[in-house]
Amino acid sequence: MCGIVGVIGNNNTTDILLNGLEKLEYRGYDSAGIYVNNQTGKDFLVKEVGKISELENAVTSDVQGLAGIGHTRWATHGKPTIENAHPHFSEDNRFYLVHNGVITNYAELKKEYLSDFKFESQTDTEVAVQLIDYFAKKGMDGEAAFRKALSLIEGSYAFAMIDKEEPDRIFVAKNKSPLLIGLGDGFNVICSDAMAMLDQTHEFVEIHDGEVVILKKGSVEISKIDGTKVQRDSYTVNIDENDISKGTYDHYMLKEIDEQPNVMRKISKNYINDDGSLNVEQDLLDEIKQADRLYIVAAGTSYHAGLVGRNIFEKIADVPVDVELGSEFGYHMPKLSKKPFFIFLSQSGETADSRQVLVKVNEMKLPSLTMTNVANSTLSREATYTMELLAGPEIAVASTKAYTAQIAVEAVLAKALGEAKDLQIAKEFNLKEQLALAANGIQTIVDEKDKIKKLTADYLTNKSDAFYIGRGVDYALSLEAALKLKEISYIHAEGFAAGELKHGTIALIEKDTPVFAYVNDGIGASHTRGNIQEVEARGAHVLVIASQKYAEAGDQIIIPEIDELISPIISIVPAQLIAYYASLARGNDVDKPRNLAKSVTVE
Amino acid sequence: MCGIVGVIGNNNTTDILLNGLEKLEYRGYDSAGIYVNNQTGKDFLVKEVGKISELENAVTSDVQGLAGIGHTRWATHGKPTIENAHPHFSEDNRFYLVHNGVITNYAELKKEYLSDFKFESQTDTEVAVQLIDYFAKKGMDGEAAFRKALSLIEGSYAFAMIDKEEPDRIFVAKNKSPLLIGLGDGFNVICSDAMAMLDQTHEFVEIHDGEVVILKKGSVEISKIDGTKVQRDSYTVNIDENDISKGTYDHYMLKEIDEQPNVMRKISKNYINDDGSLNVEQDLLDEIKQADRLYIVAAGTSYHAGLVGRNIFEKIADVPVDVELGSEFGYHMPKLSKKPFFIFLSQSGETADSRQVLVKVNEMKLPSLTMTNVANSTLSREATYTMELLAGPEIAVASTKAYTAQIAVEAVLAKALGEAKDLQIAKEFNLKEQLALAANGIQTIVDEKDKIKKLTADYLTNKSDAFYIGRGVDYALSLEAALKLKEISYIHAEGFAAGELKHGTIALIEKDTPVFAYVNDGIGASHTRGNIQEVEARGAHVLVIASQKYAEAGDQIIIPEIDELISPIISIVPAQLIAYYASLARGNDVDKPRNLAKSVTVE
Repeated sequence: MCGIVGVIGNNNTTDILLNGLEKLEYRGYDSAGIYVNNQTGKDFLVKEVGKISELENAVTSDVQGLAGIGHTRWATHGKPTIENAHPHFSEDNRFYLVHNGVITNYAELKKEYLSDFKFESQTDTEVAVQLIDYFAKKGMDGEAAFRKALSLIEGSYAFAMIDKEEPDRIFVAKNKSPLLIGLGDGFNVICSDAMAMLDQTHEFVEIHDGEVVILKKGSVEISKIDGTKVQRDSYTVNIDENDISKGTYDHYMLKEIDEQPNVMRKISKNYINDDGSLNVEQDLLDEIKQADRLYIVAAGTSYHAGLVGRNIFEKIADVPVDVELGSEFGYHMPKLSKKPFFIFLSQSGETADSRQVLVKVNEMKLPSLTMTNVANSTLSREATYTMELLAGPEIAVASTKAYTAQIAVEAVLAKALGEAKDLQIAKEFNLKEQLALAANGIQTIVDEKDKIKKLTADYLTNKSDAFYIGRGVDYALSLEAALKLKEISYIHAEGFAAGELKHGTIALIEKDTPVFAYVNDGIGASHTRGNIQEVEARGAHVLVIASQKYAEAGDQIIIPEIDELISPIISIVPAQLIAYYASLARGNDVDKPRNLAKSVTVE
Repeated sequence: MCGIVGVIGNNNTTDILLNGLEKLEYRGYDSAGIYVNNQTGKDFLVKEVGKISELENAVTSDVQGLAGIGHTRWATHGKPTIENAHPHFSEDNRFYLVHNGVITNYAELKKEYLSDFKFESQTDTEVAVQLIDYFAKKGMDGEAAFRKALSLIEGSYAFAMIDKEEPDRIFVAKNKSPLLIGLGDGFNVICSDAMAMLDQTHEFVEIHDGEVVILKKGSVEISKIDGTKVQRDSYTVNIDENDISKGTYDHYMLKEIDEQPNVMRKISKNYINDDGSLNVEQDLLDEIKQADRLYIVAAGTSYHAGLVGRNIFEKIADVPVDVELGSEFGYHMPKLSKKPFFIFLSQSGETADSRQVLVKVNEMKLPSLTMTNVANSTLSREATYTMELLAGPEIAVASTKAYTAQIAVEAVLAKALGEAKDLQIAKEFNLKEQLALAANGIQTIVDEKDKIKKLTADYLTNKSDAFYIGRGVDYALSLEAALKLKEISYIHAEGFAAGELKHGTIALIEKDTPVFAYVNDGIGASHTRGNIQEVEARGAHVLVIASQKYAEAGDQIIIPEIDELISPIISIVPAQLIAYYASLARGNDVDKPRNLAKSVTVE
């Protein structure tokens, strides 16, 4: 994770950096810092532990200049301290560097080249900036030293560096970590994500892995590390700036939960034509139709959306599906089927764990699709096909609308694939109607906020552990419901297959342990009721979330009518709200929970 | 779960019942009870909440008779109270019934037939005994009423019933839950598991689903519910009684941990011939060789052994493997491959969640193998093939030696299958040597008990949460290591793919949160080290368990040399010991943790 910004040639350097960092805060907020150079010999370095607001308080009015770089950190190597905060600098204060990524051979580089250097931090980044200084001291100019160091560094990085001896330029390089150049009017900017600079420009230039950019006020020179020149056109990013403001809400998360009915309508409108036909790329369908097995690769919440998708693809499109964690699958790839097709699920499209799988998939020349909320993201650019989630920017770190959008878009593809295979069940699956039911059903649940807030207080006040259980479609759902609660309330929640709990974990159930039980799954409903009795017999305090069809007297939350296959689109919403109210009651920072970052760009 | 015993025609009825129940205590210990009838008009009902020792204290010396039934309960319907303890009886005190299983239509039966009956408990069992009474009051004799009730009851059951009007016989019936008849010298017994009656007899008769037995002092009459007679021979059970005593140990669990080197040697001796060839049934190999995909079905610890097995089968036998939870797979079967082969892993061979899958597999006429520690168990009898774990009786509820035995036997089959397919990698995999390394490696770890006890105190004193992390083979291992800790220490432990933690759950890490990190997996080692840094940056207290090969200075526990594929056989042992010492330090009942039962014979 970590977020990077930079600007060259603008009088408002400090403001542009700080505004940009605020927008990138979702990428980590363990510490932050900026380096500003006024190009007349004066420069400033300000770093603070904690969120960007701490940094803003620390920046005095004299911090002004024409060139600057900034960074917000999600700690990988070394604790979140001032010393470990970026920008890092060489021991002679000549080079200032910000970095997103992980340098895997930093210990070897330090040992081989830098035994005489004095280090301030425990970071891999400081090794990089000292290494550049090492080659500069050997007589190379800044650019040559930068290129030489890059040729030795292994791992992932997005770098932006200012050399005090040439402060009219920023040295930029990228490998595996995301980085973009933005073209301003008489100035240029750098950012990890276009969102950070939308108030400055909508015109951006991609940088590819292994490339170096010398960025000046009026020019963007791209080359490979060895110096070979590269030409690349810019592109325009169209995002409505209103989408990234909180409006009247106290938190992005609640706003994004409430936006879900609209997201369902938008997906329906964009992917389903008036005549009921689906708007899915024909080439994609022709290729995925050949697959004997789909491999869905994802992490975190997207992984849970993949587990829901498995069921939809198997039922509607009659194709077997494996759902795999990116971090595991890339390095321990199981025996693949004869004709695999890969689907990458990633809200940000930048998830490093998934991207390293995609790199391997591309090396094997296998077809792939990315479902992402960010067009032009790395996973989107590098996969064969892309389907957009159309959820609009998701700012809260805990994902809500991107999860429900993923399930809906999986359903679109499953139906399209099933129809391409001429399957009756796919033709009969009325997705337009189902997405309308989903939108209305979510609305019913979000209209019950007061009730859910009260239930949250009844069940979770002073609790440190909780369990979600369910069978079939409710099992996948329980995993996501528990993750939501963990992420923002810090309650140790776990999701379980309702029938599996008794094989060990039931030992954790004691008097008044909260257990949230889902009963939407028809085949499993009666057995889940049995499992509810088992935990109640051990004293658990059980809250039942049941679909209309299988509800019994006393069930606390009723899920409105919807096809079971996509029922998690509605039934996750009570869990999103429970997590929200539990977090709020504990005084946590709902949108920026501790230790997390939204876009996980390290492995 | 729940355990049942019964005896007819012996003067020591009470002792036989209580001794039998003690041996069955692993099946549940929420409450226990006996009913004894002296066949001359006097009878006794004694029930207590808690373990068998409570019941023994409550049984006075006058409780004597010639017929009796007993029960130890794992609560499913209704809390563990005296009222809900078995035996249950009809409102007129004529019929006394013990039951293991779950009656799924008990609410309907109660509504249709028993609206005028007075109920003492919330159990499904009381509905059964009252229903029998209902038909008796309609004029049927005891046997006819029993059969009539059975014809209406849905779900799983093992029943033993005494009718006060005919106390010279016990009425027995079975469906899905385990039950055996034991043949004594001038008397007969009933038990859920032969182990309960080995001090009375080694001669047993199976009962199959849907059968009724009228058991008298000198006769065993088996028939179907409709009365059709059934003939069946008895068989002899050979188990050394020393295997089921604690010897000089305070707890079975520690004894069983220490037995693991011997189990490895026994598996090697039994499955590997002197010439290096493997002792695996040729028919099994011929059939599994045809499979295009293996489906391993299991629950709890066995499921985790299956995840380790997946990797072994894929690497050594070049066959893709799915590992599935029994409770999920049976009701939500994914799209199967063209030529599936099923492997059931179950220590007891009685796991109901797996058995319902096997019933379906048999209906589909698909081939199957059970790997179990109990020959003649239900899963063993009903699968096409059986491979025995040879671990010897495992008494502690938390499984240890059965887990490591499962991995070793999976490796035997993987190598045999690979050799049958003429694969070079299988031929080169020197399993005899590896199992010898496993035995020695476990010995090295168990010889470090004092060190591990101290580490446990350092890391887990006063902690309520803990995490195990690892990649690849260490991921599967982490799940099992965490389960062990949960089961007996009641610490909320979770196992994670090391790379996945940062996608949400890392929010739970705070200052001094214990994190146990495994580094045996070669490909993942450097990335896991990165993940260790991430959690340390958030304050986690990290204990590293690393193989010799990937160990670094400061790692706390070193795993001796072994092939990575089967390394969990050794590397689980520190986690078994950590769980043991954490449980001991908290004063828990190590062998009989709360809420659990060893053989999970309900869904």
